[in-house]
Amino acid sequence: MSEDYKVIFTPSGRQGRIEAGTSLLDAARQLGADVDSVCGGRALCGRCQVDIASGQFAKHGIESSPHHVSSPEAAERRYAEKRSLPDGRRLACQCTVTGDLLVDVPATSQVHSQVVRKAADNREITLNPPVRLCFVEVQEPDMHDPSGDLRRLFEAVEAQWPDRVSGPLQAGLPVLQQLQPVLRRGKWQVTVALRGGSEIVAIWPGLKEQVGGVAIDVGSTTMSAHLCDMNSGEVLASSGMMNPQIRFGEDLMSRVSWSMMQEGGAAEMTQAVRDGLQQLISEAAASAGLETSDILELVLVGNPVMHHLFLGIDPVELGGAPFALAVDGPVDCLASELGLQLHPGCRVFVLPCIAGHVGADAAGAVLAEAPHKSEAISLLIDVGTNAEIVLGNSKRLLAASSPTGPAFEGAQVSAGQRAAPGAIERLRIDRETLEPRFSVIGCDLWSDDAGFAEAVQKTGITGICGSGIIEAMAEMYLAGLMSADGVIDGKMASRTARIQPDGRTFSWQITETVSITQNDIRAIQLAKAALHAGFRLLMDRLAIDKVDRVLLAGAFGSHIDPKYAMVLGMVPDCVLDRVVAAGNSAGAGARMALLNLEARTEITQLVRRIEKIETAIEADFQDHFVRAMAFPHKTEPYEELARAVQLPPRDLSDNTVSALEKTPRRRPSRRR
Amino acid sequence: MSEDYKVIFTPSGRQGRIEAGTSLLDAARQLGADVDSVCGGRALCGRCQVDIASGQFAKHGIESSPHHVSSPEAAERRYAEKRSLPDGRRLACQCTVTGDLLVDVPATSQVHSQVVRKAADNREITLNPPVRLCFVEVQEPDMHDPSGDLRRLFEAVEAQWPDRVSGPLQAGLPVLQQLQPVLRRGKWQVTVALRGGSEIVAIWPGLKEQVGGVAIDVGSTTMSAHLCDMNSGEVLASSGMMNPQIRFGEDLMSRVSWSMMQEGGAAEMTQAVRDGLQQLISEAAASAGLETSDILELVLVGNPVMHHLFLGIDPVELGGAPFALAVDGPVDCLASELGLQLHPGCRVFVLPCIAGHVGADAAGAVLAEAPHKSEAISLLIDVGTNAEIVLGNSKRLLAASSPTGPAFEGAQVSAGQRAAPGAIERLRIDRETLEPRFSVIGCDLWSDDAGFAEAVQKTGITGICGSGIIEAMAEMYLAGLMSADGVIDGKMASRTARIQPDGRTFSWQITETVSITQNDIRAIQLAKAALHAGFRLLMDRLAIDKVDRVLLAGAFGSHIDPKYAMVLGMVPDCVLDRVVAAGNSAGAGARMALLNLEARTEITQLVRRIEKIETAIEADFQDHFVRAMAFPHKTEPYEELARAVQLPPRDLSDNTVSALEKTPRRRPSRRR
Repeated sequence: MSEDYKVIFTPSGRQGRIEAGTSLLDAARQLGADVDSVCGGRALCGRCQVDIASGQFAKHGIESSPHHVSSPEAAERRYAEKRSLPDGRRLACQCTVTGDLLVDVPATSQVHSQVVRKAADNREITLNPPVRLCFVEVQEPDMHDPSGDLRRLFEAVEAQWPDRVSGPLQAGLPVLQQLQPVLRRGKWQVTVALRGGSEIVAIWPGLKEQVGGVAIDVGSTTMSAHLCDMNSGEVLASSGMMNPQIRFGEDLMSRVSWSMMQEGGAAEMTQAVRDGLQQLISEAAASAGLETSDILELVLVGNPVMHHLFLGIDPVELGGAPFALAVDGPVDCLASELGLQLHPGCRVFVLPCIAGHVGADAAGAVLAEAPHKSEAISLLIDVGTNAEIVLGNSKRLLAASSPTGPAFEGAQVSAGQRAAPGAIERLRIDRETLEPRFSVIGCDLWSDDAGFAEAVQKTGITGICGSGIIEAMAEMYLAGLMSADGVIDGKMASRTARIQPDGRTFSWQITETVSITQNDIRAIQLAKAALHAGFRLLMDRLAIDKVDRVLLAGAFGSHIDPKYAMVLGMVPDCVLDRVVAAGNSAGAGARMALLNLEARTEITQLVRRIEKIETAIEADFQDHFVRAMAFPHKTEPYEELARAVQLPPRDLSDNTVSALEKTPRRRPSRRR
Repeated sequence: MSEDYKVIFTPSGRQGRIEAGTSLLDAARQLGADVDSVCGGRALCGRCQVDIASGQFAKHGIESSPHHVSSPEAAERRYAEKRSLPDGRRLACQCTVTGDLLVDVPATSQVHSQVVRKAADNREITLNPPVRLCFVEVQEPDMHDPSGDLRRLFEAVEAQWPDRVSGPLQAGLPVLQQLQPVLRRGKWQVTVALRGGSEIVAIWPGLKEQVGGVAIDVGSTTMSAHLCDMNSGEVLASSGMMNPQIRFGEDLMSRVSWSMMQEGGAAEMTQAVRDGLQQLISEAAASAGLETSDILELVLVGNPVMHHLFLGIDPVELGGAPFALAVDGPVDCLASELGLQLHPGCRVFVLPCIAGHVGADAAGAVLAEAPHKSEAISLLIDVGTNAEIVLGNSKRLLAASSPTGPAFEGAQVSAGQRAAPGAIERLRIDRETLEPRFSVIGCDLWSDDAGFAEAVQKTGITGICGSGIIEAMAEMYLAGLMSADGVIDGKMASRTARIQPDGRTFSWQITETVSITQNDIRAIQLAKAALHAGFRLLMDRLAIDKVDRVLLAGAFGSHIDPKYAMVLGMVPDCVLDRVVAAGNSAGAGARMALLNLEARTEITQLVRRIEKIETAIEADFQDHFVRAMAFPHKTEPYEELARAVQLPPRDLSDNTVSALEKTPRRRPSRRR
């Protein structure tokens, strides 16, 4: 009987006695420690690098030393020469146990390593990718044993990667068609991509070390992609572009209407978005130095209309009650079925939509923000033409969509515009002089800073964007230029010349060309009331008045000042510093699903569990909506806001009811 | 507690007690009796028709009467009016149990009914089709329960067809893309095609009663298709055509060579054969009154080169040792992956090849002829450019391919031609006068019948086909015009002017333009010796001298006279009436696989079990080959032949060895 030694792997802590002469890679497999490998122990890929600790480890009762493994032999020395090996690093597949050992597996050598997402966005993803690369040596054919090349490939994978194979192997036609030339070009050494432990989806001659996957958020306006190394999880490239469908209509519902009116309209929009996806992926691949044929996996998210369109499903049913989704589960298909020219084995996973107006993008945001993993009540808001709202915690999650309309995006506002250079985006009003100061996109200075006029000369001041309007409205209220019901106060014309008569109402002039009119305020009131009524409805269901955390997702959420959002009632009462921009949560969720199979199961099961509230049929929604036209400070206590902001005296004595009566009771039409 | 009654179903014999008021269709399901239904009990499809017996059934202790079920109600009467119902027939879904019953399920109402194949070919197939039609009523969407249409479809199928669903339901993108318009067009009543009990591959509005499947044998020269009703198994149409690849070369190996020499040559041949498949299927569909989009299932067989080509696999490896197949298992893919325009959910099952020269056509023939289901030793021979040979019984099966070359197809023979009008196909020689009489294809008369000259005037006598050459050779031997070594006997010129000098040898003249030369005889000798050596090698492995049954498959097998084949040694010793033409066994096997899932498993497992013999590396093959150049009667005892035919005196005294020595020892090149 041969000797054995104690071997401990960190950081997993897996340990046990290992027979002398066993390779460290085999030892890791025996003990269940996580050590990566593509080449399967041939000193080719260098994924299994480990550090061997030196010293006494009293806690474990061992002394570990780099001398307790065999010395580097030819293959390992060749690897170190050709590919370089950091000092002290060893290839686990090449050194064998000759004494007690403490072996550290660096993150880069772990299969299930934690990947830190891009700097701004430091959540971690645990890797558990759907495809894995496996290098194998295949038996050559022999007239004495006339088996097919595919059978011998399967036998090689089963024999050389027993811990990766989880079922009977299979391979589709594209692999079969390539099989014979690739085996011969690789001189019977090939790398296969193994999907789900049983399907060979790709094959390359020799050693293939990198394949990519792309996570894509298909927004109505923009599409963004992150190309990741499927083995390390690293983001290799990111790209973004305008959604080419925009030529069919700025907002989603105009696109749905267009598709309903044109023969083949939906098909044309499908083609446009798919062309866009192909371009986006090609650009990302090019900037990462990969071929599109190196892309083996896609994950897509998007709102329900985009989701249906890129899948080639006519979105017409989403345009009218009962807003029926074609499919509410995840969709799994081949990239080629979407007309994408990537690797023929490339598969697509599409996150599930939550409801007819709460899309796969919201599902992605939920996956990324994980409200279901905390007892704290989270409110997740993604403002677009519709606001997608998710509320809850580990016990219960609710979702709804509110028809905010496009006012927050600058539409329906006299001087409104999209967030683009030249737009006013921030605004303050001096409480004494009632003079405004503001900043515009594309310029770092405030309007009262020296040199501002020159700085903005190039873009001009072209209008006001969503965040600018919100700040303007909130400041007008806080400065007393506007009542709690949203009426511009004509009496204040005596204190500032910026209040001007405007028909039977008044407007407030910011610059010569940019004013806030009473109509503008009504448009924003309708939008923010719809948003407020949406989350209020969900909060009623949970019987709560405050939430623990508000996450504002998407581009709009990143530019909005939480304080002003709260003054307007666009978020519920909450400790102010717990109202945060979440960035592109939908895209982050897509990336988690790209790199981790369990995330796919998790979000699929979770979406089933989410309670879907259809605001259109909830009587309470209408009541909340009417009440929310006013500033919330007037109608309900916002304790946290009062602590943070100097609010006007709370005055319930004015004629709230009559003011509400005057508000047109129309609901904005259901649009996204 | 309600009453129950004894219900017996025939022919299955399933019986039990059934609660009063239960429909007969439900009773059948409860008892496991086989009663078909597409509409799921809505009196629409009429598949569940049954006969109710009348009288005492002492053996079962019951009295059955048509009055022991409820009377026809509106739905059933409507069906009888619109679609007609034979006298006494009832729809099992519409009548309920009110007393003891003996219910006969006619074959047309059974799911797993036996289907008799076309007249000439009376083997039975048990139906167990991969796709089943299920009519369902789907819940409409509701804003209070915002689930996707697909989920409600799944729920409907699960609830309404519990005995057909065997796993979690799924549906691919093509179904998803059609789902919403189809549900609405069908007013929430649709028919789905359920594949393998879990995948919805197609959906139609309302009731869909018929879908087709096609079994295709892709031969080197011709392709033939049988279009079947997937529910009844009935052959709705058959079609055949020349393989369009023929323009790339008459025989297979010239096509492989062509593909090797041309850039993209294999791809071009793939395209040609796929175009041919599309045309063949379209023609069959048209003649059955179906659309190509009604085709939901294909089964393909073919020799290894064809198999690789229609799958889009370059057959170059089959052109040289070690003749490695890309895949030796079955292939399952979508018809669209083969570029075929059928229903987008149409799948293709390709039977496994047995070895590099023994194709999926041979596997189909094995499935149809079932040598593995008998203790009797069967020899299955399919003569093409290669002869595919399978030998054995339930205990052991062997397969090999012999390089016969194209002589049997009329090539390499001076007056040889393909079997076409004008070719001599039968020939007898008068033992006294040594005068021949013959018949030609396209004419029913023999050459010595009155009116023959006029009858053949249209075609003329253009040459001699394979079966004609074989009969000519055998008759020449039996009449003494040729020695057992295959030498035309110049001495016989004294008895007949048809023996003519021909250089250093002699030839035998049939007509002014058609002669059999010594070279022709050598070519046939080489071919028949290769065939003989092939089965002899397999018989050696089983240590047998005789077989119990010889099946000659394919067109050549249908035209060859067993007696003459045996005189030449093209089949081994066997009772003469057990040497039979098997017809298109490969196509028949394809049809079995089309209609019965178990047949697919059966042939897949069986092919693995077949012992593959590579004749090219067997030293014994060469010995058998040389010995088999002579007539077998000379070198080995053919007991059964001697009983059936008046053979020349067996003479082992002539100089056999020197005759063999003179035979060129070259082997025909390995070709198919």
